[in-house]
Formats: sequence, structure tokens, C-alpha cells
Amino acid sequence: MEKIAIKTKDRVELVDITGPVRALAGKSPVENGVCVLFCPHTTAGLTINENADPAVKKDMIAAFNKLIPPSGGYTHSEGNSDSHIKSSIFGPSLSIIIENRQLMLGTWQGIYFCESDGPRSRELWVRFIKG
Amino acid sequence: MEKIAIKTKDRVELVDITGPVRALAGKSPVENGVCVLFCPHTTAGLTINENADPAVKKDMIAAFNKLIPPSGGYTHSEGNSDSHIKSSIFGPSLSIIIENRQLMLGTWQGIYFCESDGPRSRELWVRFIKG
Amino acid sequence: MEKIAIKTKDRVELVDITGPVRALAGKSPVENGVCVLFCPHTTAGLTINENADPAVKKDMIAAFNKLIPPSGGYTHSEGNSDSHIKSSIFGPSLSIIIENRQLMLGTWQGIYFCESDGPRSRELWVRFIKG
Repeated sequence: MEKIAIKTKDRVELVDITGPVRALAGKSPVENGVCVLFCPHTTAGLTINENADPAVKKDMIAAFNKLIPPSGGYTHSEGNSDSHIKSSIFGPSLSIIIENRQLMLGTWQGIYFCESDGPRSRELWVRFIKG
Repeated sequence: MEKIAIKTKDRVELVDITGPVRALAGKSPVENGVCVLFCPHTTAGLTINENADPAVKKDMIAAFNKLIPPSGGYTHSEGNSDSHIKSSIFGPSLSIIIENRQLMLGTWQGIYFCESDGPRSRELWVRFIKG
Repeated sequence: MEKIAIKTKDRVELVDITGPVRALAGKSPVENGVCVLFCPHTTAGLTINENADPAVKKDMIAAFNKLIPPSGGYTHSEGNSDSHIKSSIFGPSLSIIIENRQLMLGTWQGIYFCESDGPRSRELWVRFIKG
């Protein structure tokens, strides 16, 4: 298992992690197979989405904050129930196909670490599996 | 990696792709393992749900359109921010167990390509991994 | 493929299944790799979230019931459209990294079976893949 360290800057933020994941794939012993990404935090998740116009990230964060507002009459005493709920909607794991040590992503796709209770120091865990 | 071509007909649509994925599994060199499905688009996703009553698909599309309306005061200039957000809620990847070259699905489960900005020509990417 | 039997007690419930999955990992022939979890039901899903304060589960269930209410003017005649929709938001599959036959989870993470139309007798399907 390999780890990528991530520093987030806002409470709710989508951090593009495509570059560091691509770099790991490039030096992995697995030439063809699958890359499993795992977020070991309960107030963050993972997604894949548009890597071009940053307005998409902004709209996604606004939509998530509207659906799951930070103050929603929650009972959890730490006051970050919305962060836990957002994380479960994004999900904690992703599987990406690997060919010739390349991440197989669509033209407009980037991989995002979905911070929902930052800013914090976070980790992404990565494992390559032979196909 | 194998590819399945998909033609979608509506802006928001759930296309049953169980048949073509099952056919690929039947002729895969991997007898037992996992089938990884990946959607290489940023305005479409994947899910598994009811394969019997088509009313479920209709209700799911209505619920997603209500939660993430097409016009929601978004900033992304292409006007399809709702499509990007819906895709991240469904998610881009699925893992299905394979036994004796058969997709292990529950009785009522079908695999769906979740179009959120059609109609378009789309692809599904598939990789089989030995268990 | 291995199966874990689950008895749910409420209509909407998050059942902690970390213990039985960990036990399977401990006796799996796969020492290092990935554990794929699959929910074979169309009115239940899987997630990973906080394993400490039970208030998080309560808040998550309340938020899902608010976003996708049981009575929402649905057309599906069985009256459980909300259960199908909730399941697709959680998702049917998860991938967890395995090292030395241990589930690699973050400190505060537990694995949850997300019942959305209980109480019922359910199954979780599990497959280990060599890394």
C-alpha cells in the first residue's frame, strides 16, 4: 500500500489528486490491472469529475452544502454531521483501470479528494492489483 | 480493457447494460475474480438497481432531478453543472464479483449506465481481475 | 465468494459489519490485496463512516430520510422507491485494501450495511483479490 499526503485549505474543498496518483501508477510494478484508491477518513471522500472549468467544483460544493447544510439540527456533538454525510454520498473507494502503467481516465476526468471538514492533513491510500 | 458502446436517448436516463457486461464476463479469461466497471465521462455515472419494474427508474430520475435541478443558479458556463453533480452522487466505478465467468448479481439487480447530459454516444470501460 | 448473513431490525438502519468482514479477512488465503464487498439487494447499500459516536448514524439516517422521503409521490407500486434511491446514493460495492490479512481502515472508520427497506434477512458478498 502506498500513501499520498494531502493538505486541505477549506472546510469543504475538492482537491485534484490526479497528478500524484498518476505518478504512483507510472512507477508501480503492476503494468496492467486496477488501481484502488481509499480514503481513510470519515469526513472526506473521493470522486472523479471535470478537470477543466473550476466552476464545476464550485457548483458541486454549493450543491452539496445546500443538500446537506452544515447546520441541520444534528445530534452529533462534534458539530460535523454534515461532513460525515457528505463523505458517504461521495464514497470512500474508487477503482481505476491501469494499462501500461497509465491511469485510464476519460479526457475530461480528474480525481478529487473531497474534503468535508477541513482544513486538515489527510491521507489517500493506494493499492495496485494485477489484471 | 474492453469497451462497450452506449447510445443514450434522453438528457437524464438509466440505460440497462447488464446484458453486454454479462456477455463480456462469459468470454473473459478470468474465471473467478472481480469485474471492474468504469465510466470515463464526467456527466454520467454507474449504479446497480431494480431490473424489474421500470417505475423505479422513473422515480429515481425524478428524485435526482428534484434534488439537483437542471437550473440551480450554477456558475459553470456550459449549463450542465447538475449533470456533473449527479454523476458524482452515482459514482464512476463499480466492482462486481465473478464466479465461473458469471456476474454475481442479486435476483433483482441490473447494472445501469446513468446518463445525466444526453443524448450522447458513450463508453463503458471494463476490466476483469483474477481472484 | 463468501457470504455474511445480516438481520436488520428497522426500515432504515446502518448495521456495523466491520467485525464479520475483519474475521473473513483474517482467515483469507489472500495476505495482501483488496477486499471487494458487494450488496446483492436493490433496497440496501454499503458505506464506510464513523464507528464511535452513534449520533452520526442517527443524523445520517435523518438526513437521508429528509432528502429522499418515504412518501414522495412515487409511481413504483411497491411503495419503496425511496429505498431504491437511497441504495443508489450509498452504492452497492466497496473496495478495501488488505495488508497481512488485515482490513486497512482509518482509525474512526467502520463498515456499514445500509438497510433502506427493512426489517429483512440480508446478505453481504465478499471476495478477496491478490495484490
